Parts: sequence; structure tokens; C-alpha cells
Amino acid sequence: MVIGGDAAGMAAASNARRRRGPTALEIVALEKGRWTSYSACGIPYVLGGDVDGMETLVVRSPEEFRDSAIDARTQSEATAIDLDAGRVEVRDSRDGRSYRLDFDRLLIATGAVPRRPDLPGIDQADVYGVQTLEDGYALLARAGADGVRDVVVVGGGYIGLEVAEAFVKRGCTTTVVEQAPEVMGSLDPDMGALVTRAMRATGITVHCGRTVLGFEPGQVVTGDGSLRADLIVLGLGVVPNSALAERSGIGVGVAGAIAVDDHQRTDRPNVWAAGDCCQSLHLVSGRKVHVALGTVANKQGRVAGINLGGGDAAFPGVLGTAVTRLCDTEIGRTGLSSAQAADAGFAAATATIETTTRAGYFPGAQPLTVKVVVERGTARLLGAQIVGREGAAKRIDVFAAALAARMTVEELLNVDLSYAPPFGPVWDPVLIAARKAWAKVEAP
Amino acid sequence: MVIGGDAAGMAAASNARRRRGPTALEIVALEKGRWTSYSACGIPYVLGGDVDGMETLVVRSPEEFRDSAIDARTQSEATAIDLDAGRVEVRDSRDGRSYRLDFDRLLIATGAVPRRPDLPGIDQADVYGVQTLEDGYALLARAGADGVRDVVVVGGGYIGLEVAEAFVKRGCTTTVVEQAPEVMGSLDPDMGALVTRAMRATGITVHCGRTVLGFEPGQVVTGDGSLRADLIVLGLGVVPNSALAERSGIGVGVAGAIAVDDHQRTDRPNVWAAGDCCQSLHLVSGRKVHVALGTVANKQGRVAGINLGGGDAAFPGVLGTAVTRLCDTEIGRTGLSSAQAADAGFAAATATIETTTRAGYFPGAQPLTVKVVVERGTARLLGAQIVGREGAAKRIDVFAAALAARMTVEELLNVDLSYAPPFGPVWDPVLIAARKAWAKVEAP
Repeated sequence: MVIGGDAAGMAAASNARRRRGPTALEIVALEKGRWTSYSACGIPYVLGGDVDGMETLVVRSPEEFRDSAIDARTQSEATAIDLDAGRVEVRDSRDGRSYRLDFDRLLIATGAVPRRPDLPGIDQADVYGVQTLEDGYALLARAGADGVRDVVVVGGGYIGLEVAEAFVKRGCTTTVVEQAPEVMGSLDPDMGALVTRAMRATGITVHCGRTVLGFEPGQVVTGDGSLRADLIVLGLGVVPNSALAERSGIGVGVAGAIAVDDHQRTDRPNVWAAGDCCQSLHLVSGRKVHVALGTVANKQGRVAGINLGGGDAAFPGVLGTAVTRLCDTEIGRTGLSSAQAADAGFAAATATIETTTRAGYFPGAQPLTVKVVVERGTARLLGAQIVGREGAAKRIDVFAAALAARMTVEELLNVDLSYAPPFGPVWDPVLIAARKAWAKVEAP
Repeated sequence: MVIGGDAAGMAAASNARRRRGPTALEIVALEKGRWTSYSACGIPYVLGGDVDGMETLVVRSPEEFRDSAIDARTQSEATAIDLDAGRVEVRDSRDGRSYRLDFDRLLIATGAVPRRPDLPGIDQADVYGVQTLEDGYALLARAGADGVRDVVVVGGGYIGLEVAEAFVKRGCTTTVVEQAPEVMGSLDPDMGALVTRAMRATGITVHCGRTVLGFEPGQVVTGDGSLRADLIVLGLGVVPNSALAERSGIGVGVAGAIAVDDHQRTDRPNVWAAGDCCQSLHLVSGRKVHVALGTVANKQGRVAGINLGGGDAAFPGVLGTAVTRLCDTEIGRTGLSSAQAADAGFAAATATIETTTRAGYFPGAQPLTVKVVVERGTARLLGAQIVGREGAAKRIDVFAAALAARMTVEELLNVDLSYAPPFGPVWDPVLIAARKAWAKVEAP
């Protein structure tokens, strides 16, 4: 029994099926929405017109899953779980009827829901989230309505950025309101400032250090005056959708996310959890964290599915790696920011370098800035951030691999990375940054 | 005393200077050519017109080095070394005179020379190498001469590819002759075949499995008939330029490259070597190899310079990582190919996957093929190869970092790499390939 038919749930179902063959397991997957396995990360790009049609984002339909002997049931919400009886109560939203299904093994993959602050007027106003495909359809329909000209995005993280860009492309007057001093709170403020500047250059109005106090018809009320808004989008992150699990007696941990071990097992026998509803181990800080990303959901789903199918797989943990693009500006980050490193108890130094995405003399060479966070004493790499133009951000993956391997910056600076003039300088930006970080923390 | 004024030599000089300050060391760098520190890798792009002028490739001039208190002397060839006396014989090619210089510490960074097979007519024919900036100027001058229409490139490796593309861009009828069954012998033949196909698609005539027997005026004689050639370029790789070192009694190793330890020390006290003239340790095979690449030369030069300056740095070794571009096709490789793995005694399996550079639904998504070589039993990653379109090849660096960390493919498939629709599928191509390789070698 799989509850939740998106990335984690369906990855688990597919992996369990693959491991056990078409007949050994009976697999039912319940999805309360209308779609299975879709790329929610693609919603802003449909909104902005890069991608044609929300339905393009569906990776695999319920029919396709049924062809793989996975009984995928959409518009079917699990409303209660009786763990002792091994039974789920299911509500079919098409006819409103409920029924029960028995299970031997259960995976909870109920995802996350947009953080929705308890502010005056929030339920009256035209406020949208961007989490499910249903959200995407609703937002797209509203965005296309007559008279939608002023759009306010609350929150300057990944979703805020991507949605703001989409509305600029639609020709809307777009404003982002961010409480912190800079957008992109997962970056250090000096790197976030580069993003703020890039946003403004694309025509987005950015108000940093400004608190949203509430909503009125056609207005977002902030600590520094009101902003006209025909449409409001929340980009304040998500909270784990763990209420069903918690009600049924499954333990939750950090931020209310379902507590799991490295096999995605919950604290109850024969019950696993995966994806945005559950917690992860951060490989650098060693702490439990809640990271809601499709990459992690897919990996955790794979591991849970193998284990549900009788195999033995472990998910080591996360690094908080993420990447996004704002018009021509690319942004990547992995590991701990300076603030996160301090919070986790590391004595950290940083090094920032500016170089180019190609050999300096090569046509199309673009500037990029790389910042590295490194532990004093051990020289261990703790995190990295990149802001630059085309060709910049995917380099963050090399830092991610180095973090996964617990490399020092001295080890990293000597890694034999590739080079040719169309692809980078002879010292790759990753290596230049590691070299500078090593120079900072090397014993005299 | 530094002999050789390109990447390794000048990186060493600069690092020694930086470590010791402007007065503690007297540094002389001898370069037999006219230029210091240039990007020889850029020569094909000047030839093809992407980059304007050979002089653009000079990273740092002798004057700039002199401003850093490094006495860089061009057109000054070291013709003999007396190690016991600590003395170098220098010939100034401007006036033909020789003089002697004393040294306490010596770095040899004499580079490599193009492999020039001992074939009939090679010295009469219009045959060019592409190694030094002098070679670049000579080739550019000849390429621009009247009547140069048919160009034959002997050898289908990186240089062969890049030079062939340059001549196609110049409007020449360009033919590559390769003895092996496919071009790009550092790839497995099935991946090489993708490159052969891409070359033909750009208008290059490719003859694989064809041996060059000799040269006649205006002709390259092969085992299967003659080819018209107004101009011939050798792309057969390089051999270490270690004769001077060997004559002075310094030990050489594999392929005649100068033998060094991980501190770039030769077998003689106070003598270091770095760059294309010396050998490296291959981190996967554990064997000594000769890899002539600017990336390695720079890293070895840095390490040698720190040690020359009284510091303590080590160069761990190489992975044979390389990348290149042929019009829209990108090619990357790192670690061991299947043949190299077998040769090094590994029982290896391979996995090949095809996916896209961006989310499948995202505009501009391009195909790429990734092949992974993995050790049976241990699941250790041994090597990887990528052939694809724009955005494909730089992903090879993630494999390189994983190889440096001796990761298994199971460890690699769980690394938290970045994702957003403009940058890749939710499972990055690197991870998809690792996942398939793990499925192949996982114990049942």
C-alpha cells in the first residue's frame, strides 16, 4: 500500500514491482489528486510559457502504472490508517464514498503543503500556492484571467524567483517581498545580493527586509505600506504533510516531518515513509533536516521501494543541493551556508572567487562567482554557492560529490577535472575556489 | 632555476615566489620559445576563427613575470645541465651565444613534443604539429596561404578532432585518418562511433582503420590509397621532452617521462619536474602514466613551486579526465575505459544510458549518452564517458570527483546532485548511469 502518488510514492511502487516481478506483490497506490508522477518543479515554466501545457509535466499516468501491475488510484484519499489492523480508509472524491483496504506493508509518501502564514485576510485574498499540479492549473487559470496585471510574490526563495520570472514573462508587473535582508536565504547574504540584483535587472521589483502583515482585497499589507496585487503567490516554502501519519501513531521529528532511519523505516513495523513528508539526515551537519525536493523524494522512494520489495537499500542523506535559473542568471548551492555552518557548530572560513565559465579569451565566456565554506583546522569542505551566467550553476554538482566524500579543500583542488577552452578556464572555477579556501585555512 | 616557461614552469615560479615573498628567492625561468604561459589548447580555436589572434592565448607575458620578480628569459634554451656543479648552459637564440647560470634548486618543465612517426617523406611534406605557440603561428600562416584546400589530419584524438573542425570552418576539404576502428581511442569503441558519426555530420571525411604509410608531395599515402593533401597536421599525441633531463642523469620512467614522486621530486636531490615532461600516478589503475594536459601541468607546477619555495605539497595523481567539443557535440571522459580497465587487471562491467541534458519536456533538451565502467564484486566506479549535445560533457567532472574519492556506483547514485528543469532530468544523467551500473553488478 502506497499513500501518495507523486515522486516518492510512485518511485517506491515501481522499484518494489521491479524487484519482485509482476505477480509476487499486490501494489495499490492512492493519490488524492488527479495526477500521478508529475514534475511540480516544472509549474513555473508552464506559467511563464517555456513549456506548453501543465499536462506535459506528467511523467507517468495512472494507466501506465496499471500496465506495470500497479493499481494506481487517483482522486482517492487515505483519510485514516489503522496500523494494528493493517487497514486504510479511502475516500473516493468522485462519488464521495469511502471504503477500506488491507495492507501488509505501507509506504507513506504524502508530500508537503505550502507554508501558509496565519495572517489577517489570507483566506479572503487571491492567494495561491505552487505545490501540486492542481495548484498549477488553478494559478494558470487565474493568471490568464482579465485584469491580472499586478502580481505579488511573498518569499524570495527558489519558488518565489521562478514564479516571479514567469509573471514577468507574462507581462505582469511583478513584485517580490522578502522578509530577510536578501533573497535566497539558503545562500550567504553577499551571494543573495547578486541574485537580488539579477532579479531587478529582469524587471522584478524586489523589496527585501519587508514583512507581510496581512492581505486586503487587491492589496498586500506590509510593514512599509501596501502593494497592489491582482494575484498573490506564496513562496514561503513547505511543511511536511504528516498529519495522517501522526494521527495514526507514527513518530514525527524535525519540523513535524515523519521520522525515518536510513532504510526509510518509520518507528512502526512494516511502515516506511519517503519524500517531502519525511525527514532526512544532513551529511555535513549530521543533523536531521526537512528537505522537500524532487531529487531527494525520488531517491528515498527508490530506497523505500527496494526495501518494501524485500531488498536492502539505504539512503545516506542529503546535502541540500539545489539549482535554479533566473533568465540568464544561474544559481546553485550545496552543503552548509556560513550561517548554517555556524549554527551546526563549525568554525568556518569562506573564500569567494570570480572567474569565467569558459577560457577568458573564448567567445561566450560569462562571469561567475563561487563561494566556498570551509572548516578551519581540518580544511573540510562544508558548502559552496555559485551565482553566474550560462554554464555556471551545474558546477555545484562537483562540490556535492566532494561533500558526499567528505573531501578537504586541498583534496578538491587537486581533483583532475576536465578542461577545454569552450568549457572553462584551465583551473576550473571549482578548483580556483577550493585553492583559495585552502590558502585561507592552510596551517602557516 | 626553472627550465621551461609554459604552464608547469611558470605556475611553479609563481607559487615559489608567492610563498617566499619578493626577495627571499632569486628565480630565473628559461624558455626556448618566444612566449611564456600560453594556452596551447586554444590554438585550434584561433585556427578556426572562434578566437582572434594567437597572441590572445598568452596568459602572462615575460614582462608581467618580471614585475613579480621572476626573471623570465625567452628564446633562451637550456642545452645542458651539470647537476653536480648546479649549473645550466643556456643558449640565447637571438645572438646564438651561450652562457652559464648557477642554481641551488632546479625545476624541469620542458613539456612534450608531437609524436612524429618515422615514415617515408615526413620531412619533405607539408607536415605540421600543434603543440607550441610557434607551431600555431606556423600552421596559421600556412593555412592562410593560397591554394590550401585539402587538409589531412593524421590521428583522430582530441587534437585531431579540434584541428579538423577548425579546417572545416575555414572552408577546407578536411579528412581525418585514424588507424584504430574508431576515432577517440580514449573512449570505448561504441562511444567513439558516436563521435565518428558526429564528425561526418559536420562535413569531415573520416577514414578509420586506415594506416598512414608515408608522405609524398601533395599526398598522404595510406594502406588503402593516397589522399590529396595541401597541408598535413599530425594529431598523434605527444612524447615527453625529457632528453635534456635524461642526458644530465635524471631518471626517466614510463614512456620516457621523467620519474617523480608525489612531491614532483626527481631521483636527484634539489631537482623537481612538472608538466608534460614527467609522469603521473593514475589514481584508478595505480600505475605510472604519461598524461600531457594543461590541467595536470598547472597542478603539478603549483605543487613543485610550493616545494621549491620550501613548502610541503603533494600531487595525488591523475584520472585522465578530458573534454572537448566538435561543433554541437560534446565529449568527456575520465578514469579507465573498458580496455584500460581490463589491461589494469580489473574485472569490469559497463552500463550505457541515453537521456537528455534538461528535463525531457523543457525547450532545448538535448540527447546525451553516458557509459560507466564499474568493477564487478566491489561495485567501484572505474571510469565514465559522455557523448552528447550542449550541456552534456562537463558532467564528466562529477564522475572525476567520484573517482578521486574511490566511490562505488551505489554511493554515487545517492549523491545529492542539483536539479531544476532547465538543467537536467530529476535523476541527473550521472546518477541514472550509476544506478544502471549498480543494477548490473549488485549481488543478487
